[in-house]
Order: sequence, then C-alpha cells, then structure tokens
Amino acid sequence: MYLNDYLKSKRPMETLQLPSYKIVIGEIGTDQRDWLQQQQYAGLVILADDNTAKHCWPVLEPLLADFNVHLIQIPAGELHKNLDTCQFIWKRLFSLGANRNWCLLNLGGGVIGDMGGFCAGTFKRGIDFLQIPTTLLSQVDASVGGKLGIDFNQVKNSIGLFRDPVAVWADPGFFHTLPPRELRSGFAEIIKHALISDNEQWHRLLGQPHLSAIDWAAWVADSVKIKQQIVLEDPFEKGLRKALNFGHTIGHAVESYFLESDAPLLHGEAIAIGMIAEAWLSHHSAGLSNDELRQITAVLLHHYGHQPVPESALPQLIELMRQDKKNEDVRINFSLLPAAGQVVVNQTAEPAAIQQALAYYNSL
Amino acid sequence: MYLNDYLKSKRPMETLQLPSYKIVIGEIGTDQRDWLQQQQYAGLVILADDNTAKHCWPVLEPLLADFNVHLIQIPAGELHKNLDTCQFIWKRLFSLGANRNWCLLNLGGGVIGDMGGFCAGTFKRGIDFLQIPTTLLSQVDASVGGKLGIDFNQVKNSIGLFRDPVAVWADPGFFHTLPPRELRSGFAEIIKHALISDNEQWHRLLGQPHLSAIDWAAWVADSVKIKQQIVLEDPFEKGLRKALNFGHTIGHAVESYFLESDAPLLHGEAIAIGMIAEAWLSHHSAGLSNDELRQITAVLLHHYGHQPVPESALPQLIELMRQDKKNEDVRINFSLLPAAGQVVVNQTAEPAAIQQALAYYNSL
Repeated sequence: MYLNDYLKSKRPMETLQLPSYKIVIGEIGTDQRDWLQQQQYAGLVILADDNTAKHCWPVLEPLLADFNVHLIQIPAGELHKNLDTCQFIWKRLFSLGANRNWCLLNLGGGVIGDMGGFCAGTFKRGIDFLQIPTTLLSQVDASVGGKLGIDFNQVKNSIGLFRDPVAVWADPGFFHTLPPRELRSGFAEIIKHALISDNEQWHRLLGQPHLSAIDWAAWVADSVKIKQQIVLEDPFEKGLRKALNFGHTIGHAVESYFLESDAPLLHGEAIAIGMIAEAWLSHHSAGLSNDELRQITAVLLHHYGHQPVPESALPQLIELMRQDKKNEDVRINFSLLPAAGQVVVNQTAEPAAIQQALAYYNSL
Repeated sequence: MYLNDYLKSKRPMETLQLPSYKIVIGEIGTDQRDWLQQQQYAGLVILADDNTAKHCWPVLEPLLADFNVHLIQIPAGELHKNLDTCQFIWKRLFSLGANRNWCLLNLGGGVIGDMGGFCAGTFKRGIDFLQIPTTLLSQVDASVGGKLGIDFNQVKNSIGLFRDPVAVWADPGFFHTLPPRELRSGFAEIIKHALISDNEQWHRLLGQPHLSAIDWAAWVADSVKIKQQIVLEDPFEKGLRKALNFGHTIGHAVESYFLESDAPLLHGEAIAIGMIAEAWLSHHSAGLSNDELRQITAVLLHHYGHQPVPESALPQLIELMRQDKKNEDVRINFSLLPAAGQVVVNQTAEPAAIQQALAYYNSL
C-alpha cells in the first residue's frame, strides 16, 4: 500500500530563502528544532488530521519534547475544510490560552496547510504559523505563495487570505505515509510547473515513466523554485501568477463537480483532466502544436488514466468556472500554452469551445 | 433626538495621505466620486445596516447613480458582528457575482467597517474595500490602522485581520443621523487620543463642556492625526501601538460584561469607565499625579455619568481581560499614563489592583 524504503535513502537538504521566510527541503531534524527554539514562542500548537496525527506526529513529537506543545486533531479530508472546522480550531486555540506569542504548526496536506494558515492568520488578527506539508502536492504547491483559505458556498478556497508562514519544512520522508494515489496526485503540479515554464524539465519528466523511482527531494526543490520565481514577481495574483492556473480553470470545476459524487477525484487527478482539456484549448487558440498536444495528452493519460466527464455536467461546470476567483468579469479566464514550457495568461474561451475541449478529453 | 443643524455649517475639507491610502475628512461630493470612477471597478457593493441604509444611503445614492451599485443590508448592532452575518454577506457577494475587480463600500459605524472589511479581506482571498464611517467613533478610531474583525467565542474582535482600505471618506455631516448618546460615545476616543499623546489637546478638551458646540471636522482631523502617527510607527501592534489601548483593557471587559445585560453600554461609555479605572492604576503605579487623576475622573464623569460595575462581576471581568489579544502570557497588559499627554505600554497589574481600581470607580 505504501511506497517502499527507496525514498528514505535519497534526501539531500536544500534551503530556499524567500523574502520573508525559508523553505527547508529535507529531513526535519535538530537544525529546524534549534531555529524554532530561537523564536522563543510561548507555546506551540500542532494542527493535524486523523492521518497525520497517526503517521506523522510520532516522527515529530520526540524532536519537540522540550517545547510547550499541544495537539489539535481534526477529521481528514477536503469535506472538513470549512467554517465549522475553523470554529472548532479557533475555540481550541482559545481554550489552550494561545495568543500572538504562540505559533501554529500545520502538519498535513493542503487542507491542513490552507485551513490552518487561515485560522492562524485570523485568530486574534493573526498569529505566526509554520507549514509542515506532508504530501507531495502540498510541498510543491502550498510551500510558496501564501494562499490560505477554506471552501465556502460550494466553491473551493473561496474564503481566505494571503499571508506567509514563518517557515516551511518540507520533508519528502513523509511521502512514506502517503497512498500511491496521493503521491500521483501531487505529481500533477510538478508536470504543470514544467509545462508552463521549463521545456527542459518537461523533457526530463518524459523520461520518468514510473513514480516509484523518483528522487523526490530534487524534484520538489526544482518545482518549488519555478513556483517561487513566479510568485515573487506577482505576490497577489495580479498578472503573471495566473500562469499557475494552467489546467486549473477546468480542473477546479471538474474537482468540485466530482466532489459531490460517490467517487471524488483527488486534486491532481482533476487537474490532469483540466490540463488535457486546456492543452486542447491551447492548440485551438494559443498556438500549441498538434504534436505537443498529443505528447501532453499521452503523458497525462499514462499517469492518471481516464475518467469520463458526463456531457450533462457541462452547464454546472460552466457555472463553476464563472464563479472562479480569477475572472474579472463574466468571461472565463484561462492560462494557456503556446508551446510546452511557455504560457500566456488572461485568455478567454466561450462555453462552446470549453464543451469541445471536454469532448476531446472524453473521446480519448 | 438628533443634533441640530449647527453641524452642517462647519465642514472644512481635510485630506490625510497615508502610505497606502487617503483619508478625506469633509463632505462627500464630486471629488470622491471622480476618484472612484478612475478606479474602474466592475461593480460596487454598499454594506449598510438598517440605520445607515435608511439615513445615510439616500445621501450617497444620487452621487453613485452612474455606477453598477448594489446594496447589502444587515441588522444594526454589535450582536450581529459575528460569523453568521459574515456568511450572509459572503453569500450575497457570491450571488451578485462580485470578484476581485469589485469594491465593497462599508457605510456605517464600527461594526459595519470592521465586519465589512473582514468580509472583503477574506472574500476570494481579498477584494478592495472603502470605508465610509458614519459615526464619530468610527471616523476617529477605525479610519486608521487596518484592524478588522468580528466577535467570536464571547470575545470582541477575536477573529480578524490587518488590511488597509483603498480610501476612507469621513464626513462629519453624517453625525446628524446619530443619537447624541452615540456621538458622546465616539467622543471618548478623542479624549483618549489627547490623554495618551497631547497635553495641549487635553487642555483644549477641558474647555469643551458641551458636545453640541464642537467643530467636529477639526477635532476628527486632529484626533485621526494622533492615531495615524502611532499606527505608522507600529502597524502590527508590536509595541507603541499598544498606547491606544489606554482604558481598553478594563473598558473592553466591562463592555463585554454589559453586552449580556438588559442595558448594554456603548463602546465609548465602557471605555470611559475603563479610562477612569486605568487612570487610578496609572496613579497607583505609573506616576500619574493625584490632581490629574481627579481632573480626568471629573471630565469623564461630566460627559458619561456613572454606571456602577457590580463587585460580583470581578472574576468574570478578570477572565475577559486574560482573553485579551494584547496579552503575551497570563499577565494582564495595560497602557498607563505617567501624566496627561504621556503613555507607557506593557504595564501589568494584579487582580487585586484591578479590583481596587474598579472599587475607586464605584465609589465615585
């Protein structure tokens, strides 16, 4: 069920210095603990879900033995990324006596990081938080950018804010605790980062047919660097940062749509569908060659298989896309690829074209 | 019931340029409308409560006739400054199709400004908002500082964030719409600003026995300038900004305590009690002279009368003070006056001293 010990052997340490915090990629150890001690927090709170409390907290706990540390445990899953869970977390912070001299350590995947960061960023108008992403997706996607939030009104991440953590500790050793499907889901963001900005990395990816033989620490570091570059130039998503939305306009809508079904998709699985459909749109209207469309399609199908999207869902999908935060008016906004490794933002597509893109995906 | 037309006659326009926005103090007119037009928002949403929708929106509406403008109306009062109302506001913003190219105009007192700013700051991770404070308190207190929030878990402003508006339009003409008790409540912040930082203004205040004869625009401008200076030096309340908490440690607790009674106090009325009790603490342990303690006490009693605080409330009041955001540990934090016009922050007091301070107030 879980990945083999191969992962354990390859963990070089790499540190990326961002303007206001550091991302440390590698095994969490005494360096990180010493840094935390220097911060002199009056108290630490670990936010974990049922999975990370069981599989990840025991790894971290011995290291934090000398701290005033408390655990808040919540149920796992995107379904709980909502205001009810926030209220539970805020109330627990109150009852622990937490204040602005405390720090919240978010130990988990994207749900924990996004929601924990939002709760920390709003508790008493903001206390410090530290991200300890335990999934590939959250290490690659959520380590940089300061985007925090929860789902509301059936729209993902629709309530939230921008705020940076005090540090990110990304330890690929935690990938041991992930089911392979989760790891594969995170891999979609690595593919996306290569597709929008690095043709060489895209070609290296083509040479990686099996996820079980990947040197994760190196891939995580490279992928985080791509995102970091983009975010630094556009911290509040006014322009360039929209590049990161490639695959996400359709992908988010597909993810929301299947969220209510018996077989919800993981984020990366939905984004893989979105990337294929948006690669078709890129070919249709942004100059992507037919060869590259076929290549992108083949790689994504190889890793993610095929999950038909019912034609009857189209009106609901279009409505979900219209609700997207990135739209500045009623038109639906896309980031498309003129070629693998290049991106153009602020592209729009009519519902008819979106329908054709999904029909292309369904026909595969 | 309402103030006489005297107010209307005295409204010079004054503009304070802050690092990221402007505060315009004076009648709202074509200058402000033209500026708003230049921002090219796709839509405007007015957030008003039942009172400001009735008394203030009709003043503003003709000026905004050419805009795509919508009204969200909520019930008036601090009791509604909670997550339930936020959810109502967020849902209405969704159903209006608002996005990051829209702006929320908060038309009302502190509740509207704090909660509207919080909703705007978190809707789709943050849209622009413009503050149009209609009460004296909110013009003086909430125009500067970016402190936004709602009440949660029986603690005032315990969930929130720091975020600046795109502009503040403070029009003392709106004071016409205020009951005298509201105006008097706001006056407490003007007294506080003078007491913590400006002995001359404090002496000018001593010469203002009647609120009905005050040139509000000038007083608002002077008082906002005091707050602006303090906030600019300490935007995130790490040190100096705590000066603004004079009267508020005890005052907030008293306000929360009476919130559940049949006769809730207005914010400034509670802060007046807090200022008398904390002036006693200042005399007791920060060097405030007996003469100045008597003078401060006399002025505050003159304007606010006397509202005994039951001795039996003490344990609950102490607990409320411990919950205060400004405490860094279990000790209760105060900002005290060595003299009128001077302040020291990070002072602490034991429950026994707080009890004596309240006993002093009750004995008056």
